[in-house]
Amino acid sequence: MARFETLRTLRFGDCDPAGIAYFPSYFHFLNGVAEEWWDAIGFPWRLLFQERRIGLPTVKLDTQFLAPGFMGDSLHFSLEISALGSRSLTLEHEVMRDETVLWRATQVVVATSLDTHKSIAWPVDIHAALQSFQETPSHV
Amino acid sequence: MARFETLRTLRFGDCDPAGIAYFPSYFHFLNGVAEEWWDAIGFPWRLLFQERRIGLPTVKLDTQFLAPGFMGDSLHFSLEISALGSRSLTLEHEVMRDETVLWRATQVVVATSLDTHKSIAWPVDIHAALQSFQETPSHV
Amino acid sequence: MARFETLRTLRFGDCDPAGIAYFPSYFHFLNGVAEEWWDAIGFPWRLLFQERRIGLPTVKLDTQFLAPGFMGDSLHFSLEISALGSRSLTLEHEVMRDETVLWRATQVVVATSLDTHKSIAWPVDIHAALQSFQETPSHV
Amino acid sequence: MARFETLRTLRFGDCDPAGIAYFPSYFHFLNGVAEEWWDAIGFPWRLLFQERRIGLPTVKLDTQFLAPGFMGDSLHFSLEISALGSRSLTLEHEVMRDETVLWRATQVVVATSLDTHKSIAWPVDIHAALQSFQETPSHV
Repeated sequence: MARFETLRTLRFGDCDPAGIAYFPSYFHFLNGVAEEWWDAIGFPWRLLFQERRIGLPTVKLDTQFLAPGFMGDSLHFSLEISALGSRSLTLEHEVMRDETVLWRATQVVVATSLDTHKSIAWPVDIHAALQSFQETPSHV
Repeated sequence: MARFETLRTLRFGDCDPAGIAYFPSYFHFLNGVAEEWWDAIGFPWRLLFQERRIGLPTVKLDTQFLAPGFMGDSLHFSLEISALGSRSLTLEHEVMRDETVLWRATQVVVATSLDTHKSIAWPVDIHAALQSFQETPSHV
Repeated sequence: MARFETLRTLRFGDCDPAGIAYFPSYFHFLNGVAEEWWDAIGFPWRLLFQERRIGLPTVKLDTQFLAPGFMGDSLHFSLEISALGSRSLTLEHEVMRDETVLWRATQVVVATSLDTHKSIAWPVDIHAALQSFQETPSHV
Repeated sequence: MARFETLRTLRFGDCDPAGIAYFPSYFHFLNGVAEEWWDAIGFPWRLLFQERRIGLPTVKLDTQFLAPGFMGDSLHFSLEISALGSRSLTLEHEVMRDETVLWRATQVVVATSLDTHKSIAWPVDIHAALQSFQETPSHV
């Protein structure tokens, strides 16, 4: 299964007075990583949202925080598809600092119409791109 | 079981280009609501973190988003304790707009030392306050 | 001149590892306060942006930070109009904790069309509401 | 004068329901860019804040927003020192998308003790690094 990987630096402004990552900031990162992955598979969100009026709301998000992240940490994000439905998508996210897993999240996203905010079937070209990503052997 | 309730307004800056609540913003609200509840049971975070050097990191957070929130919505947050351990706490959050549940989250928090970032047993006074909150019949 | 006033609590998640308010968070507050004021004068942003397609981008923002804000502080925001043009508006913001001014900002906002992102003249009803606010004697 | 340059992508989560950059998000970027520059001149903030207990609060920030940023834009940040005092520093920030200047900011930062939150003179090594940056001819 293919895996998308990218890096982020945990900045001062992402940390809290306890000196560690503020967890809501982690989800801002996670959303940006997902957006970067959609770019990589050929569907930039500006196109999806503004021209095709397709939304990708998160309907379920289960997260485990295993170790604290500290200001200045280099975070390695990876993302895989664990399930592809006709109207939804399940992503597995893992975030590491060197050899340590800091947190993991399972995110279920559904395709919606931005005009009705109701779920829709994946358009054929998007479903094909997701399936292709899912089936490509990972080079990791 | 006692329930803590408070209101928030979903503002423009909490919403995204799809016109609905940006989910990382929801977690920023959730964290502030938890902080407000700690104020209400007698342990403001400034005291906990700065004087007592106790941290309250989230170790697990499972969320279901059931309906979209829109700019200007009045959000009703409620919070209950579903489990109280010797070193941890499980909170059930529910967020409604009028009669509609928008999202629910189960959050597990552990007590830590901010000096070591290791878990610690709840100090006696804090454990007593949490237990008292948990056992007080709700007036809702 | 009329003055709009409202309160906010500076929360843990608005503060940084230096233990004081993270200044970008202040601007998130400021924007929400402005939105609350537009509600108060009869123009909720959901209506302005979605139905009337009017945008209110900030074109100039000059800020002085005079004293640090700390976690748990109660912030008193006040807002006045210092200039009202045919297409723009200048707001003076002041933020206090008790008798201490923490920061001040001068914000210039222009009316735009959300379809072209070009400036437009204030619609008559909006200009009248702004003028009425500006001219009402303050009860402060 | 030397100039520090770096890139950021304007993501969905940095934009607002008007479809353009949410200005408080711009300041979160700006702060991260400044932090990255301090890394580059040899003073990572983890070291400055946690070990040396030096804070760098912003005391003045004057910003002009000249053109809207859109979701997916690649933002080119550049930063120069326009004044170096014994206890303060003035930075000039410019943010471009291709050939278009989107916004500019002048930021005054002071050195403080994180224990007293009072201003202090720049430590000798930091002052030397800032001066060296300021005086190095730019290769741009």
